[in-house]
Amino acid sequence: MATRTAPDRVLIVGTGLIGTSVALALRARGVSVWLNDADPGSAALAAGLGAGTVVPDLRDAKGIADVAVLAMPPDAVAESLSLAQDRAVADVYTDVASVKTLPAEQARALGCDLRSYVPGHPLAGRERHGPAAARADLFLGRTWALCPLPETSPDVVPAVSALAEGCGADVVVTDTGTHDRWVALVSHTPHVVSAAMAARLAAPGVSADALRLAGQGLRDVTRIAAGDTALWTQILSGNAVPVAEVLTAVADDLLSAARSLAPTAPEPDVSNMSDLLDRGRAGVARIPGKRGDAARSFAVVQVVIPDRPGELARLFGAAGDAGVNVEDVRIEHSPGHPTGVAEISVRPDQTAVLLDALTAGGWTARR
Amino acid sequence: MATRTAPDRVLIVGTGLIGTSVALALRARGVSVWLNDADPGSAALAAGLGAGTVVPDLRDAKGIADVAVLAMPPDAVAESLSLAQDRAVADVYTDVASVKTLPAEQARALGCDLRSYVPGHPLAGRERHGPAAARADLFLGRTWALCPLPETSPDVVPAVSALAEGCGADVVVTDTGTHDRWVALVSHTPHVVSAAMAARLAAPGVSADALRLAGQGLRDVTRIAAGDTALWTQILSGNAVPVAEVLTAVADDLLSAARSLAPTAPEPDVSNMSDLLDRGRAGVARIPGKRGDAARSFAVVQVVIPDRPGELARLFGAAGDAGVNVEDVRIEHSPGHPTGVAEISVRPDQTAVLLDALTAGGWTARR
Repeated sequence: MATRTAPDRVLIVGTGLIGTSVALALRARGVSVWLNDADPGSAALAAGLGAGTVVPDLRDAKGIADVAVLAMPPDAVAESLSLAQDRAVADVYTDVASVKTLPAEQARALGCDLRSYVPGHPLAGRERHGPAAARADLFLGRTWALCPLPETSPDVVPAVSALAEGCGADVVVTDTGTHDRWVALVSHTPHVVSAAMAARLAAPGVSADALRLAGQGLRDVTRIAAGDTALWTQILSGNAVPVAEVLTAVADDLLSAARSLAPTAPEPDVSNMSDLLDRGRAGVARIPGKRGDAARSFAVVQVVIPDRPGELARLFGAAGDAGVNVEDVRIEHSPGHPTGVAEISVRPDQTAVLLDALTAGGWTARR
Repeated sequence: MATRTAPDRVLIVGTGLIGTSVALALRARGVSVWLNDADPGSAALAAGLGAGTVVPDLRDAKGIADVAVLAMPPDAVAESLSLAQDRAVADVYTDVASVKTLPAEQARALGCDLRSYVPGHPLAGRERHGPAAARADLFLGRTWALCPLPETSPDVVPAVSALAEGCGADVVVTDTGTHDRWVALVSHTPHVVSAAMAARLAAPGVSADALRLAGQGLRDVTRIAAGDTALWTQILSGNAVPVAEVLTAVADDLLSAARSLAPTAPEPDVSNMSDLLDRGRAGVARIPGKRGDAARSFAVVQVVIPDRPGELARLFGAAGDAGVNVEDVRIEHSPGHPTGVAEISVRPDQTAVLLDALTAGGWTARR
């Protein structure tokens, strides 16, 4: 039976990072949580972390939960849903897979009862996996997408929405196709673009000396290209058409930019390039800031710091004593040198106070 | 006359960020520095910062310096070199422009004496400009490329090399064409790739809800796309052919990746995609780490921190007391929530010590 309030009893199927984190978040709010995993050791570890009580066999779990959360990779969701519905373990079902069209189509093909199924995707993750990496606060302030199917009963959506909000997340409701186009844009395509840029660094004939000229910009653009190939190939394959569309659009812009620079024309036409750069600026300005509002520009103060224990403590102590809140920090070490530069982001109106405090404390600091 | 030791007398023509920083670095080593700028106010400000002594008119500067550093944008270098050589202000000339083929060709066309000219490019910069942003330590541990021309006398290179090393930089010697291909690869193309990805976020029909799904990966890939369009159009135009080559290669990889995902084939062929991801990983692994060695993986410890002044000081105080050196910090605020998560990078062997210290101090911390 559907409910407008948060579910009292939740079954987590799949006690990896996401499943166990959901369990921990719900346990912290007093929800009764059952844990099930194909790997009994994983479920036991999650239970040991306080995530809930293990139910080893779903055949013993009829009616055990208001909501069952299927926390597994996309291609395992449909079969798990079918099995859980056969056992009638819950009133409402959701999943947490990062693509939504594929599992829904597979569930439809398997003859699952889609009226009680609300596909979901919490936008949270860590570089580590497994229950030991789980955190009750993993979803705090994150977006959690819900994608009811045409067959989904509107009555069952509020229970899943309340579950997501109970984990501290902000719910966005859309459909599976729109969701998949969104993640193609903001997650999957950026990964391929980063990889394609990084791949040039490993092209034949690129000397190590060339890489000595690398700066922070290249590091940022290529950072996510270090991700796991097998995992990402699976993710990208599961959202192939939307990713291919955005990739093609990016490639077209790059080719157009290359043509605008190329020497075949009598005079390079840089207006295409400028237009692309302007569009890029407009795009990056749309990304919400760390606090959820439109990206706002903090002021950056640079401070030279010796590379030894305690120096950052002294620095942040001085900032705290001055009543200045540090919004972000980046530390840049000069290769081969025992000093680094900390770039401290603060609210613009706190810049002068911080500079005064640091200068008084003997630091070399400047905007 | 050429010298193997650091120059005693240096003339800086152009007292912007780079020129004034060179001056400050050399002054700190006791070098006599003369300052000249088309804008007298800029030269006066640099002098006021202790960067040297103003020489208002190069007609009064005959024989004034061992080395003259022409610190201006690429398209102004050749004319400045011609003028300075007409006045015979120095024995040796260098510049600091970010592309090298274009100024050298222009200097050749103007009939400059290329025997005394060593084109250079210090790989350092800041987001701010002008003499007020200058720092004596700007080049500390950075790479400084020198690109002697075929006409350059080998005798004059050591003086410029000593000047760069006197600023704390590591010298790499190459030719102008190779230099320009290197910066096309590690600096110019990444900017356009970042812009092309960011431009998709501003494409028609992309809703603000889509951007709510953005994570750190997208932020990193698109960060540099916020740069100034006019400046970057000029930079890219000045290195058009090498940039167009790398852009085309990136675009080809993206189109190939898109085709490998696209539904026209009976079965998507993900091997192309996997190959690209693998090449991306190989590329990013080649970028030297912050300390100049191959990128090494630090262990990351996550700590929940309240968003109020003094908390970071307490945190780093505890780390310092435990003898743990913080290699890097990232702070992630959960939008709309009064707590954030600090991700602290430390040497892997210091992880346990740090976790113990933080747990003892009452923090919620985990690997």
